[in-house]
Amino acid sequence: MDTVLVSKKKKHNFSAGPAILPASVIQEAAQAALDFNGMGLSILEISHRSKEFVAVMDEAVQSVRDLLHLDDDYAVLFLTGGASSQFYYTAMNLLNEDETACYLNTGTWSTKAIKEAKLFGNIVEVASSKDKNFNYIPKGYAIPEDAKYLHLTSNNTIFGTQVHNLPDTKVPFVCDMSSDIFSRPVDVKRYGIIYAGAQKNLGPAGTTLVIVRKDILGRVKHTIPTMLDYNTHIAKNSAFNTPPVYPIYVCMLTMRWIKEMGGLTAMAKHNESKAALLYNEIDRNPLFVGVAAKEDRSLMNATFVLNNDELNDAFMAACTDAGCVGVKGHRSVGGFRASIYNAMPVESIQVLVNVMKDFEKLKG
Amino acid sequence: MDTVLVSKKKKHNFSAGPAILPASVIQEAAQAALDFNGMGLSILEISHRSKEFVAVMDEAVQSVRDLLHLDDDYAVLFLTGGASSQFYYTAMNLLNEDETACYLNTGTWSTKAIKEAKLFGNIVEVASSKDKNFNYIPKGYAIPEDAKYLHLTSNNTIFGTQVHNLPDTKVPFVCDMSSDIFSRPVDVKRYGIIYAGAQKNLGPAGTTLVIVRKDILGRVKHTIPTMLDYNTHIAKNSAFNTPPVYPIYVCMLTMRWIKEMGGLTAMAKHNESKAALLYNEIDRNPLFVGVAAKEDRSLMNATFVLNNDELNDAFMAACTDAGCVGVKGHRSVGGFRASIYNAMPVESIQVLVNVMKDFEKLKG
Repeated sequence: MDTVLVSKKKKHNFSAGPAILPASVIQEAAQAALDFNGMGLSILEISHRSKEFVAVMDEAVQSVRDLLHLDDDYAVLFLTGGASSQFYYTAMNLLNEDETACYLNTGTWSTKAIKEAKLFGNIVEVASSKDKNFNYIPKGYAIPEDAKYLHLTSNNTIFGTQVHNLPDTKVPFVCDMSSDIFSRPVDVKRYGIIYAGAQKNLGPAGTTLVIVRKDILGRVKHTIPTMLDYNTHIAKNSAFNTPPVYPIYVCMLTMRWIKEMGGLTAMAKHNESKAALLYNEIDRNPLFVGVAAKEDRSLMNATFVLNNDELNDAFMAACTDAGCVGVKGHRSVGGFRASIYNAMPVESIQVLVNVMKDFEKLKG
Repeated sequence: MDTVLVSKKKKHNFSAGPAILPASVIQEAAQAALDFNGMGLSILEISHRSKEFVAVMDEAVQSVRDLLHLDDDYAVLFLTGGASSQFYYTAMNLLNEDETACYLNTGTWSTKAIKEAKLFGNIVEVASSKDKNFNYIPKGYAIPEDAKYLHLTSNNTIFGTQVHNLPDTKVPFVCDMSSDIFSRPVDVKRYGIIYAGAQKNLGPAGTTLVIVRKDILGRVKHTIPTMLDYNTHIAKNSAFNTPPVYPIYVCMLTMRWIKEMGGLTAMAKHNESKAALLYNEIDRNPLFVGVAAKEDRSLMNATFVLNNDELNDAFMAACTDAGCVGVKGHRSVGGFRASIYNAMPVESIQVLVNVMKDFEKLKG
């Protein structure tokens, strides 16, 4: 039977997350929700132990391994609860109460990670950019050598900053990569744990990718509930209990797309040229000012304001008229934010740039 | 633009979970994955703060309230992590280490719930049916009056038993209703917490429904990580962080369908007649024997075996030929299991019954 579904003209989706997915991924995801692989069943109603879903999980895990060139020292997990759950989960699994971990505070999410980690050990905030509303990435701070790990937020979705150079230390990183995972190559060897909520650059809301170096686990003295122990999920390949089948499936499709696009080196090149197109206009157009320090600008989330606040509503309306959605800035920053993740086509950014140019002609 | 998706002839889906969803729900869910409400965006790529998704969440919560006739004493949450996470979450939120909670052990999931709860307080197993491989529900056991709660598993998916009569006690119930939520009316006033993984009777894998009486919270002395405190999620209507958007949406559609079908009283009547059709054949057909004690038989999962084990493969093949999938029994029980949740049409059960009748003619 053929089923006809109706699809409106696509919007240019600049949402910060849940965020844009590749058009081909959406088409295939909708097909699987109706009938998966010609099984006569929706992927929403098949067992997580079926050979069809086990193949999905295996491909998802293998794609993470391929994209990041992981060796067997690292395990790949698809969990739930978002990055917000990893804030306590990481500390609970890595830290005894008499041990120290370091945190770099670059915004809202770092601040929350610090709060949760303090329940488990001695937490040192090595540096913070709170003094300037987190519009830059601190550098040159000291890192205690006895720290179990240094926690970083690699990209700050709200403030539009990104860590472009890792600090020079032998302490392993624990990193929240929710908003820039798979946007560029990563030197994984320097990380103990990488975690990422799926809903920005990897898939829909509902699963959390965790990459963990296995030898750092199993060293804490306190008891951990079964579901909160990474080793539980490593032993069962993320299927100790029922995993979030559909979100993992869509992540698998997205990673398949990234591989087809040429992998992370190609993604990085693509993302750099897309970001340059937008930042060049922000810098050129006399109506606009970028929020983040130039050297720390995020390639994923561009934050900018109008010189004249009174024009905000008119610019917002111009964006909407052109089909650009999700451009409103976060309340902590104000102004505008264009999230231009992997799946954002350059054509959509050009539409936004044209809106900015037209707005200059009208109001400049 | 119209998009044509291909749908094969539907199978008769007897899977234990993730499990069958109503055909109309699957069609609408696939449409939303392609283009949600004519927005020009997939529901997979819209913000959880958008008015479109807030409306979904609000309807989902209100539908739970309507179906179970909840008053304001109860909060409704859509979390993640499955029922397996609620095993520790409930005890962590309700129990101090010097306090007692009671558990009725009716199978694999109860046993796991007991294991996790022991990390937080004094756990009394009031009764167990382990002596007969959990093929019945214990009755007539004593419940200490000072217990904070009595934990029940209302339906045992693996063993095919169901609690049909609640024990007579003033102690509030904490109940894992994963596999029979919304299959019948519930006297909610007797419960402190009801939780259910969505993927059996409520929606796809990826979200966990929790109904909690608010006055039992906030009484423990130990510190709870922010994400593990029910009050965090109550204060933010399950959107403290990004919720699993699509799984919640599909649950909302399923509850809309249940309401259209007449609500829980109609569901119960429907489920009783569907189960009678299958159990009557199990009892009538000389080739088959039911596994669970008759008075404790589940209306959701019928477990049965062949008198002659050597016919197992032939019966399985006959099921497959007729388009009946997911009929293999769990390894803890063996034989066969037909899961006949709310969404299972009586026509599919008739197909299975016909397979059993034909098998009798062939092999009896």
